Amino acid sequence: MKNIYAIGVGLIGGSLAIDIKKNDPNVIIHGISRKDATLEEALALKLIDKKASLEDIKNADLVIISIPVDATVKLLPTVLDLVSDTGLVVDAGSTKVDICKVVENHPKRRNFLAMHPIAGTEHSGPSAAIGGLFVGKTNIVCEVEKTTFKLQEKALKLFADIGMRIRYMNPEAHDKHIAYVSHLSHISSFMLGKTVIDKERNERDIFDMAGSGFASTVRLAKSSPEMWTPIFKQNKTNVIEILEAYINNLIHFKELMEQDDFEAIFNEMKNTNYIKDILKGIS
Amino acid sequence: MKNIYAIGVGLIGGSLAIDIKKNDPNVIIHGISRKDATLEEALALKLIDKKASLEDIKNADLVIISIPVDATVKLLPTVLDLVSDTGLVVDAGSTKVDICKVVENHPKRRNFLAMHPIAGTEHSGPSAAIGGLFVGKTNIVCEVEKTTFKLQEKALKLFADIGMRIRYMNPEAHDKHIAYVSHLSHISSFMLGKTVIDKERNERDIFDMAGSGFASTVRLAKSSPEMWTPIFKQNKTNVIEILEAYINNLIHFKELMEQDDFEAIFNEMKNTNYIKDILKGIS
Repeated sequence: MKNIYAIGVGLIGGSLAIDIKKNDPNVIIHGISRKDATLEEALALKLIDKKASLEDIKNADLVIISIPVDATVKLLPTVLDLVSDTGLVVDAGSTKVDICKVVENHPKRRNFLAMHPIAGTEHSGPSAAIGGLFVGKTNIVCEVEKTTFKLQEKALKLFADIGMRIRYMNPEAHDKHIAYVSHLSHISSFMLGKTVIDKERNERDIFDMAGSGFASTVRLAKSSPEMWTPIFKQNKTNVIEILEAYINNLIHFKELMEQDDFEAIFNEMKNTNYIKDILKGIS
Repeated sequence: MKNIYAIGVGLIGGSLAIDIKKNDPNVIIHGISRKDATLEEALALKLIDKKASLEDIKNADLVIISIPVDATVKLLPTVLDLVSDTGLVVDAGSTKVDICKVVENHPKRRNFLAMHPIAGTEHSGPSAAIGGLFVGKTNIVCEVEKTTFKLQEKALKLFADIGMRIRYMNPEAHDKHIAYVSHLSHISSFMLGKTVIDKERNERDIFDMAGSGFASTVRLAKSSPEMWTPIFKQNKTNVIEILEAYINNLIHFKELMEQDDFEAIFNEMKNTNYIKDILKGIS
């Protein structure tokens, strides 16, 4: 693998570039972005070696697409049109159904591998890229059987080399479960931040009182709306379903408080403490 | 200060004991707990030097009460009955109205300082105690004017010496604002954990898909129900008010999704991103 094209050079694209280059200093990382300023920043940060444009993709051994998922759905067919017969295209989007669907009948479908590295942070843009982001993290690969075997092998070796565990799943299962364990957390966090900011708008120094617990629960409210709006749009059905369940649980908790049923409140918490075991090893 | 009595030797009591002893190795930390096993654990961990019982409090220079807030309300008048005229009693509870109220007419009210060190973690018990927990953290002191000046001075020096910033507030303001920036986060986290566990009860390995974002938002769901149930009970009115606002924001978000108003969804998130600036410095 010699010529790698990163479409999107932010947190995920940039971090992948750092690790891949570290493992193989001979690769040339070409950056592609709608905004030249982003490419200049990525160059300055040495995330990429060169700036490139879409037409250059014909020279790619590997194309990594790490842009908002609505942009991926729009761009992916064109990228597959452009890539050579031996070129591999992967995406890193947080939704998989729409992305897989848009290329299901593409003549170069076998050059594409759909994946989702579970390794974000709440930061975004080239300056958020860090080395070692993927060590020990899970990379969910969808519809692996639709990718040419040789390109599968190439991709899986590359991601194993940067420390990722691979997990296979179909796009529907991915989108459903990721709504539960990732997308909902973002909404809970954004709305928690909004609720408290609304209440304390005129008393900013109140946040002196906030401890690490508050910081932890609202951390995800720093996430990029550009990235997250299309995720919620594409995964609307699953997200609404789990959000409704969450709201109902909160309403139930409030009703228990209103009824002074603190024994039930205790049990709600006690039964959820079991999350300790579940979280072991996630960090 | 020579004889310090820690009533409750868990996360907060134990961590205070570690730091105080480190700053002045001559103090003797006496531990008091309902459960002898807890005291034995605290002794083994060297959090305390000796086991003691309530009657010994007459010998105390300082009594630190770090037990669930319902137990504090019950015990505090007795502790003040027992303490000598020069002894100082402080509590570390997450609510302040009921605690201050129960001793407002106590003849030894001036021997008591109500405080709330904002420095918890989601862990509990003696094994959760750590050195340096309070460095750079805020200690909220309520009704400082009701404490004898000399004992105020003593207490404030002690807490400054372990690295805390002091903030003064009345109990009503404390309970209101802490509902916003701490108590609500615990409910959002517990119910998030519950919602996802309920959905995924039969598919445990789905949690492989959870990343650090999920871990961060459900971290507080590991907290002790024994500690948190009485907090919600004592701060019921404030907690219900902010919980209702949170639920309404979540319902609004869900409705925007149902209406496909993703421009509004984007703006909801964009406006909340401002939490970045607010959180600077909280960690």
